[in-house]
Amino acid sequence: MAVYTQVSAEQMAVLLARYDAGELVSAKGIAEGVENSNYLVETSRRRFILTLYEKRVDAGDLPFFLALLDHLAASGNAVPRAVPDREGRQIHEVAGRPACLIEFLPGVSVTHPTPAQSRAAGEALGRMHGSLASFTGARPNTLGPAGWHALAARCGADLDAISAGLGARVAAELAYIDAHWPADLPRSVIHADLFPDNVLMRGDAVTGVIDFYFACTEVRAWDVAVTHTSWCFEPDGTGFHADRAAALIAGYEAAFGLSEAERTAFAVLARGAALRFLLTRAWDWLNTPADAMVTRKDPLAFLRRLDFYAGAERGLLLGA
Amino acid sequence: MAVYTQVSAEQMAVLLARYDAGELVSAKGIAEGVENSNYLVETSRRRFILTLYEKRVDAGDLPFFLALLDHLAASGNAVPRAVPDREGRQIHEVAGRPACLIEFLPGVSVTHPTPAQSRAAGEALGRMHGSLASFTGARPNTLGPAGWHALAARCGADLDAISAGLGARVAAELAYIDAHWPADLPRSVIHADLFPDNVLMRGDAVTGVIDFYFACTEVRAWDVAVTHTSWCFEPDGTGFHADRAAALIAGYEAAFGLSEAERTAFAVLARGAALRFLLTRAWDWLNTPADAMVTRKDPLAFLRRLDFYAGAERGLLLGA
Repeated sequence: MAVYTQVSAEQMAVLLARYDAGELVSAKGIAEGVENSNYLVETSRRRFILTLYEKRVDAGDLPFFLALLDHLAASGNAVPRAVPDREGRQIHEVAGRPACLIEFLPGVSVTHPTPAQSRAAGEALGRMHGSLASFTGARPNTLGPAGWHALAARCGADLDAISAGLGARVAAELAYIDAHWPADLPRSVIHADLFPDNVLMRGDAVTGVIDFYFACTEVRAWDVAVTHTSWCFEPDGTGFHADRAAALIAGYEAAFGLSEAERTAFAVLARGAALRFLLTRAWDWLNTPADAMVTRKDPLAFLRRLDFYAGAERGLLLGA
Repeated sequence: MAVYTQVSAEQMAVLLARYDAGELVSAKGIAEGVENSNYLVETSRRRFILTLYEKRVDAGDLPFFLALLDHLAASGNAVPRAVPDREGRQIHEVAGRPACLIEFLPGVSVTHPTPAQSRAAGEALGRMHGSLASFTGARPNTLGPAGWHALAARCGADLDAISAGLGARVAAELAYIDAHWPADLPRSVIHADLFPDNVLMRGDAVTGVIDFYFACTEVRAWDVAVTHTSWCFEPDGTGFHADRAAALIAGYEAAFGLSEAERTAFAVLARGAALRFLLTRAWDWLNTPADAMVTRKDPLAFLRRLDFYAGAERGLLLGA
């Protein structure tokens, strides 16, 4: 969430010269997104986000992500496209990294979504799923069910150092999900990380969906479950907001829709969503020095969600 | 240089409601300045920088800094004023920190200044010194000669862990400066940190001078020496650029001017400037974990400058 690679004004000017973008006016390193370096760049004509891809994004995946964003934008979704230069190139090298100059989208991320904002997020997700029915790209989900097993194995006994009994709890949850995972539900490319951080809004309207770097091919309704687990609780995993959940699902239904099979499987999908973030946060927790400048996010915030989903009635989850 | 305190969109909206600033459109945490948290905030009417003051800036010093910026701006210098709200208040509390909503200034910082850019920086510094002749505020320089002694003592024997013999070199330099410091030269409030980072430019024109949080009362020409040491070398302290130095001094002369006594003392002032940054970087180096997310800046980059100034002819330093 920091700026890992410094880009000088002189280097930016060289990149901008490849575009009909006017003269460099301002450039600020911004703290945003996954482990990339980002700059908000303003020229005499327009604004861009300059993204340098650091280790967490595989450069080989970039063409997939850019094609996905182009497809979504062409279908009317507000997503940030990588802008092609005069020669049509979208991917450049800046300061030794793969880099893209990306459309700037207005809007702010909300921290405490209202039901109206949750509904708008559900609608935006549904519209994307509708558009993605005709997208032919594919990318494996390394953080799907098989990935959770691998990640739990890598964390190993250290899980109990985070919280006594966490290792056994994760093992039991993995067994439950293996037995109940609805692998036969429709699959699609999905966003897979639609936290409030990744939705830009003005008031109650979505102005942009960002940060597609976890996008992958997966059970489509799992995307709704990831959104549900990230929008409908307090950040620490307490205080389920049934009103937000009902609005989120209503918005998704209005724009796309859940089948009866997807509704039936929703609690399992939500347990899988909570487990995914529990495990990635646990791994980061165990591998981030306590005195590092990055904030370690509490894995137990998603254990609380997991506990909630394991005991919740379908009607409460889906608002019907 | 990171965002230390998270400010939610909801908290920003509460602050903006105190201003006639329109509706929140965008907000990005930016990596800029000393150890404050900064956001680039856009409303439907204008842009601001929201600064939250973290530990390095003493809240008791804020009225001095704000009065300084108001004075400089009123005299026609391009500096970022803290914008008063409808009731005239400039200092607020946001997320538990003292905070100001500050004018956004365009421009980028250059990494490899040209002589024309160096001249413009010298002129901007000279204009500020002219304006500051009528500024009545005062603030002690905790990083002046007495402060260097204190900082060297706090680093102690660890200086030699950075480079063999550094402790003795620093002690000898402190003794030299004690014997030769031109304490009788004219004093003024000065910027005291006018690195290229802190000068915003478009092309060869200065569009803003920022980051006044080291501003203090000191021998005025020392400000020119600090600017000289930060503009006229490669970042690692090698490669003195005589053309930049001549242009910087010519710009300062055109806007304000150095007396014969200041020219005579310039090498001592420059040795003091190099020692100041050598010591603060050494302290940060010794007190920053090697695996921290912040970049440790090499203290020896300023030892090389110190060596240069100790052996340089006045004509080479000043371009005449």
